[in-house]
Amino acid sequence: MTDSNGDVFAVFLPSGRRGRFAVGTSLLAAARQLGVDLDSVCGGRAICGRCQVAVCEGSYPKLGVESRAAHVSGVEEAEQRYSKLRDLAAGRRLGCSARILGDVVVDVPASSQVHKQMVRKRAEARAIDIDPILKLHYVEVAEPDIDHPAGDAQRLMAALHEQWSLAVERVELCVLSHVQRTLRAGEWKVSALVRNETDVVALWPGFHDRIFGVAVDVGSTTLACHLCDLESGEVLAAAGAMNPQIRFGEDLMSRVSTAIMTEGSVAEMSAAVRQAINGLIAETAESAGIAVTDVVDATFVGNPVMMHLLLGLDPSELGFAPFALASDAAQTVRASDLDLAINPGARPYILPMIAGHVGADTAAAILSETPHHAGELTLLVDIGTNAEIVVGNRYRLLAASSPTGPAFEGAQVSSGQRASPGAIERVRIDADTLEPRFKVIGSELWSNEPGFEEVAAHLGVTGICGSGIIEAIAEMYLAGIVDADGLIDGAQAQRSRRVVRDGEATFAYRLWNGPPVVAINQRDVRAIQLAKAALYTGIRLLLARLGDRALERIVLAGAFGSHIDPQYAMILGLIPDCPLDKVSAAGNAAGTGARIALLNRQSRREIEELVRRIEKVETATEPAFQAYFVEAMAIPHKSDPFPNLANVVKLPASAPITPISAQNVTVGVQSVWGRQRRKSGGD
Amino acid sequence: MTDSNGDVFAVFLPSGRRGRFAVGTSLLAAARQLGVDLDSVCGGRAICGRCQVAVCEGSYPKLGVESRAAHVSGVEEAEQRYSKLRDLAAGRRLGCSARILGDVVVDVPASSQVHKQMVRKRAEARAIDIDPILKLHYVEVAEPDIDHPAGDAQRLMAALHEQWSLAVERVELCVLSHVQRTLRAGEWKVSALVRNETDVVALWPGFHDRIFGVAVDVGSTTLACHLCDLESGEVLAAAGAMNPQIRFGEDLMSRVSTAIMTEGSVAEMSAAVRQAINGLIAETAESAGIAVTDVVDATFVGNPVMMHLLLGLDPSELGFAPFALASDAAQTVRASDLDLAINPGARPYILPMIAGHVGADTAAAILSETPHHAGELTLLVDIGTNAEIVVGNRYRLLAASSPTGPAFEGAQVSSGQRASPGAIERVRIDADTLEPRFKVIGSELWSNEPGFEEVAAHLGVTGICGSGIIEAIAEMYLAGIVDADGLIDGAQAQRSRRVVRDGEATFAYRLWNGPPVVAINQRDVRAIQLAKAALYTGIRLLLARLGDRALERIVLAGAFGSHIDPQYAMILGLIPDCPLDKVSAAGNAAGTGARIALLNRQSRREIEELVRRIEKVETATEPAFQAYFVEAMAIPHKSDPFPNLANVVKLPASAPITPISAQNVTVGVQSVWGRQRRKSGGD
Repeated sequence: MTDSNGDVFAVFLPSGRRGRFAVGTSLLAAARQLGVDLDSVCGGRAICGRCQVAVCEGSYPKLGVESRAAHVSGVEEAEQRYSKLRDLAAGRRLGCSARILGDVVVDVPASSQVHKQMVRKRAEARAIDIDPILKLHYVEVAEPDIDHPAGDAQRLMAALHEQWSLAVERVELCVLSHVQRTLRAGEWKVSALVRNETDVVALWPGFHDRIFGVAVDVGSTTLACHLCDLESGEVLAAAGAMNPQIRFGEDLMSRVSTAIMTEGSVAEMSAAVRQAINGLIAETAESAGIAVTDVVDATFVGNPVMMHLLLGLDPSELGFAPFALASDAAQTVRASDLDLAINPGARPYILPMIAGHVGADTAAAILSETPHHAGELTLLVDIGTNAEIVVGNRYRLLAASSPTGPAFEGAQVSSGQRASPGAIERVRIDADTLEPRFKVIGSELWSNEPGFEEVAAHLGVTGICGSGIIEAIAEMYLAGIVDADGLIDGAQAQRSRRVVRDGEATFAYRLWNGPPVVAINQRDVRAIQLAKAALYTGIRLLLARLGDRALERIVLAGAFGSHIDPQYAMILGLIPDCPLDKVSAAGNAAGTGARIALLNRQSRREIEELVRRIEKVETATEPAFQAYFVEAMAIPHKSDPFPNLANVVKLPASAPITPISAQNVTVGVQSVWGRQRRKSGGD
Repeated sequence: MTDSNGDVFAVFLPSGRRGRFAVGTSLLAAARQLGVDLDSVCGGRAICGRCQVAVCEGSYPKLGVESRAAHVSGVEEAEQRYSKLRDLAAGRRLGCSARILGDVVVDVPASSQVHKQMVRKRAEARAIDIDPILKLHYVEVAEPDIDHPAGDAQRLMAALHEQWSLAVERVELCVLSHVQRTLRAGEWKVSALVRNETDVVALWPGFHDRIFGVAVDVGSTTLACHLCDLESGEVLAAAGAMNPQIRFGEDLMSRVSTAIMTEGSVAEMSAAVRQAINGLIAETAESAGIAVTDVVDATFVGNPVMMHLLLGLDPSELGFAPFALASDAAQTVRASDLDLAINPGARPYILPMIAGHVGADTAAAILSETPHHAGELTLLVDIGTNAEIVVGNRYRLLAASSPTGPAFEGAQVSSGQRASPGAIERVRIDADTLEPRFKVIGSELWSNEPGFEEVAAHLGVTGICGSGIIEAIAEMYLAGIVDADGLIDGAQAQRSRRVVRDGEATFAYRLWNGPPVVAINQRDVRAIQLAKAALYTGIRLLLARLGDRALERIVLAGAFGSHIDPQYAMILGLIPDCPLDKVSAAGNAAGTGARIALLNRQSRREIEELVRRIEKVETATEPAFQAYFVEAMAIPHKSDPFPNLANVVKLPASAPITPISAQNVTVGVQSVWGRQRRKSGGD
């Protein structure tokens, strides 16, 4: 159906954009004219295959269109060549090659759209819009002309302008150093990597269509690196390693001490972590089968000390109040500034920091978990040696850190250990017999189930990890072995051989008779009380600034947050009350935030602006700290300043006790307390 | 005379800006309010002494003001301290300390103005406005506050905003690496070096008020470095050295050959020149008594091959047509990119290039000699192995290069040598006797004057340099020894023993009987003819594009241009006719342009925009080249396409021959030709 001008009608799905075009217009050109989101790297040369579309067969009466696959031109040489090389799926056409001959309805599949979305596994997490700061453009550059002596770089820029409408401002020195060789090697056809639409930062001869980036989480204990395809957003490989700085000090503060005490140690610690990161990048690149020079971007997250050392900055000031950062701003540096063995045109991006103890990792977690988009009052907390606490919603966002110490990680606990195979991670105590049952990492069996002996023989029961300690003490409390003050009740030794005297006036509770013996003693309970009081106090101080409003959502970030059962965390009073179905574990939210910053350019500005707006609270100088802290030592916390938990279902006191399970829990924590009160007969 | 509001009247000279101020306002504050150009680095803390003013004594009836020195407050502690340390001149007050008590007229001396001008020695050269891209600012930074955990860099930026109204965007990593140490060493008072009003690139504890830059001319033979005070513009020290790349090839093209032939030679040549430049910078810094870390900026000029090698770029493509540059744009790089041992925050600036053989040196010469500001049609030419030719005025500017070869530098000439002591540089030949007289470099005596024998014994007469060859051949022509075709007339051997046979049918003219013999032979004349024909042809091709208009001004840049006598250059036909009083030598115009780019930020944009607009002409591909070249071989050039020399005074044929002197010459070249014609009896 050509109209009087000889034009034909084309409709693009799913956008529904439509228009009339001269017979012979390519589908890609038509899509561009209509502003349809149809990708292309090669600029319509049947090389990249990014502009694949499907021409619909059928009638569209509302549009008055009869669409037929035959209404576009047949497959010609260039498309056939592509199809042979790359196996074009049946029904798919290259938009740049198929020309419109009659009315058509064209479907643009998601994979052919420039702005793809990466849907994340967790339902509540936002999808990542793939829109990296770097884009590849294939261009044909004019050959040098003695009568128009523009430099090679200038003719490259002109080609980018003519063929891609890019107003490129500069070609980086690292590209200039090989622009002449590359243009000639590619016979004047090259793939240019353009950063921010203004800077040419890398160049390959001929057609080059895949670029990669790494998102690196620099933890004080472990380093994690994710290699991503910058076009699809897909994680192609991941690798982790211990942070080699451990030889300069086990924890953060001992590394800061090293920086203060030992001349030259800052440079050594920087070199060590950079080298390890290079190792991880090389490892992921190898396992993905790509060259490290194709790694063209990198993002980094971590706590302030780690970020200082990564940047080669002395972290000494972070060792004592007022914990002054060298800079809290995001940093965009050169690959060479960090000695990174990736493409020299890469401009690694270090996310901004929030305060002396609230780092780029927290900024990244915010980017991942978006409390600033939430209507609900949200707590985002990453519990480690320090807990980084963010509270707020789209109107206000507050952040603080609280020095929880290493107890939650199994340190400073007599039988404590890191979360590794053989560590007790789940604990239940029968309130009548005081007999425990538990699970160890590496097995799905409870310790009272058949076959556990084999597990114990094989894996060993080697200690108890953070999540196990939380459950153990919470269950001890629910069973009446520990009272609200955190005292292990010696009287219970009469009821059970599990409760044993281990000091003049102190008792312990034995979970496992060994070897080795795994027990919770009075000092262990105290250590956990101190840690959880620090955490709870931090959260409460932020909530106090918001008028003691009740939390409506809790996101537990980090490894510890993923392992603990939120219910037990509430029983013990680590975190304030919140409907359990509104509590979720975000896993490595910091790492995810690093990936978001890698894949989406806007997110960098978003987090930079947000971090400036965040209200930073130093908990230690808050007048109420001491009082809150003392209250928070109790199990559960004595005061309940958040009484309006509308969503909490209070079970009748006589209701049957549902076995506690992290899944599908609809009861709130107050009902659990009800259980506790009934069991221990208190109140 | 306070008005009803208690305000008093202040007038600032020379601007004449005036206003009413509350009693007690400092003169600096008043000047700022009025937009008076009054300098300050310390921000009104009586430290820098940049805001010195003089309060006038006297009546200003037109203003209705009785100005008295006593109308400002007396010298108090801070000003007294400054005066003791730095010796404040009598009558001078610190504008920041002197407060207005009554009506005053205040004189702001040139040295206290921010925008100073550097007047250049040559009357026709434009003054340099001192306005470097870098500015020092003394600030007092807030100490870190645990409750407002802004980074040190952010508090520095805030101080720059509050105290200097600067919207700084970033603190460079090289500053971040010591920002914490420096702030504390300066007890929160620091001097920040701000680039382009946006980037903090260097930082010193306390008050630091002097910064320096180097302007470097990278010649293929010699390197020259000028160390400048960025505040006054003054050249504090200069140093030169041979370009160590000479061991990779004497001239440009042999270095390009090395680059093409020898693996790794580009990196070696880059390293060699960078090391030599570092040596010159260190030498100038030492002789000025400053630290190299106080060298915070650098500009570089040179031909395209030199600029490529400086930047570490392979110059191979410049070895053959079409002579493609890697980039013709100006480059702003990091000090570390060039391995420069100066302040790491420095951002060396390489001026833009014009074409494959017309480099940053020509761009710099344009900046110095401003043909683009001229109403007159101007030729700017730098004659070396290549001549870089710029022709035009404020409406159009054309550029080309012409391969003159090394003859003008004394190479390819039998008795030729570089311009060094003992070389003949001035030649006169008596048209009747054909006896020569000459001067050698290192002596003011003519060879026929008493005492010259001692000179000859002491210095030797070692050869003839470029300017001497020009004069010798021109005088040989004027004396009839050489004809218009450049043939040495063997018949003259009968008139003088100076003309000797030196081949089957060729003759030579002996200037000096040695040892060593210094003579001009037929091959020498041919070499000079070829060189001057190439030069003249290049100029004429550009003029042809402008409709064969006559030149109205000629600027001879470079060492050769400074040494040759323009009159002889015209006699020989190196350059077209032009009134002699409109011909000037600019000396090292490229070096001056490098200094302008160093001292004035606007000049960088000016030359970048101008270079884009310049019409680049490749002489070799011009159809008229061959015909013009043949014509230009004649002495003087046969055709005279520029007949309209309005200013040329034609001497009557009978007028006495004035002894030729480069000074105070008012006659034009056509009159000189008149002399030639009479002498040789031709035409």
